[in-house]
Amino acid sequence: MTNTLYCFGESGNAYKAALALTLAGVDWTPRHVDFFNGEARGPEFRAINPMGEVPVLDADGLILTQSGVIQDWVMDETGQLCGDGSRTTRREILRWTIFDNQKVSGVAEPLRFVMNFLPEDKRPQEVIGFLSGRLKVALQVLEGELATRDWLAGDSLSCADISCAGYLYYPEPFTFDRGDYPAISAWLDRIAAKPGWMHPYDLMTRAFPA
Amino acid sequence: MTNTLYCFGESGNAYKAALALTLAGVDWTPRHVDFFNGEARGPEFRAINPMGEVPVLDADGLILTQSGVIQDWVMDETGQLCGDGSRTTRREILRWTIFDNQKVSGVAEPLRFVMNFLPEDKRPQEVIGFLSGRLKVALQVLEGELATRDWLAGDSLSCADISCAGYLYYPEPFTFDRGDYPAISAWLDRIAAKPGWMHPYDLMTRAFPA
Repeated sequence: MTNTLYCFGESGNAYKAALALTLAGVDWTPRHVDFFNGEARGPEFRAINPMGEVPVLDADGLILTQSGVIQDWVMDETGQLCGDGSRTTRREILRWTIFDNQKVSGVAEPLRFVMNFLPEDKRPQEVIGFLSGRLKVALQVLEGELATRDWLAGDSLSCADISCAGYLYYPEPFTFDRGDYPAISAWLDRIAAKPGWMHPYDLMTRAFPA
Repeated sequence: MTNTLYCFGESGNAYKAALALTLAGVDWTPRHVDFFNGEARGPEFRAINPMGEVPVLDADGLILTQSGVIQDWVMDETGQLCGDGSRTTRREILRWTIFDNQKVSGVAEPLRFVMNFLPEDKRPQEVIGFLSGRLKVALQVLEGELATRDWLAGDSLSCADISCAGYLYYPEPFTFDRGDYPAISAWLDRIAAKPGWMHPYDLMTRAFPA
């Protein structure tokens, strides 16, 4: 079985898929996407994923897109990263995955983009203020929950944690400071202590600068 | 069985849950949340949902939050709104649900909020421009897909459609004009023609102005 993940280092969404595959022990090989030269928005890539986004997993011909879908497949295929695998736990994982996509990754991604990957004179300050305010609200929810337990869903590391943590390992500034969130910081260390864990820039090739 | 949905009319996320329940034939009663007076962010509500958000479904004591999770429950319980119900179709529904939460609802919601529910002199123009640009990219993806078929996932109306369409029925301006998106407009009409379909402001009580 050949599993190919279309990805690049800077994409936290790709990282969420890559890390789930890796921690669940699924063999996979990266296919680097030259994002900053527009490959993800070009016609050849859109023929694979009309959404124009990484990650895309080609699992022996089965094409899956969206990190949460790839994680769903990993949990189904391996029985890993989903706690007891019950419907209740799977729904709790889905709950945090959607929260992440809407409120954590969904905000951290454009915020980090405009703060780091746009030319300095084109960084929109009002947008940065607005998005950082929204990110803070979401991180405070995470902080509150992680102050009460080690893992977001069930009693062990799951795709809920991988989803919500994905963007938080990146070194570029995006108004997230671990010092402000001790429970999140300890949780990021717990995840990073898992055998096989890798930093996004060690797991995938960087695409910036173009 | 008693199903109570914590909701208010302006929330497209609540609408996505309410419409799925309604179209799948699940009995439910609304519990109005006084959002604009801060009820969703207060301690009593956070004891039910620490995320501080609607919708929340209380299904005979089972508490579910996030519209995508409530839709997942509706599909499991009723076998409705999930096409042939296969793993492949369910993953395709999940794919569009996550795309919606990150790129459609996830952007339309703050954009519509700042354009309509903030005082006129506090509407951040740079943010409005930024978010409307992002929404346009997502709507162009939807338009391209819906130009090729009637429904997003499988051959019939599913929770994928309900999720992506939820915010697009609202009358307040948020830079979405049906005239610019003929395939989306026809699809919104197809959904609205389904027996039992209701407009968000007919299905749920409005909370604005406070």
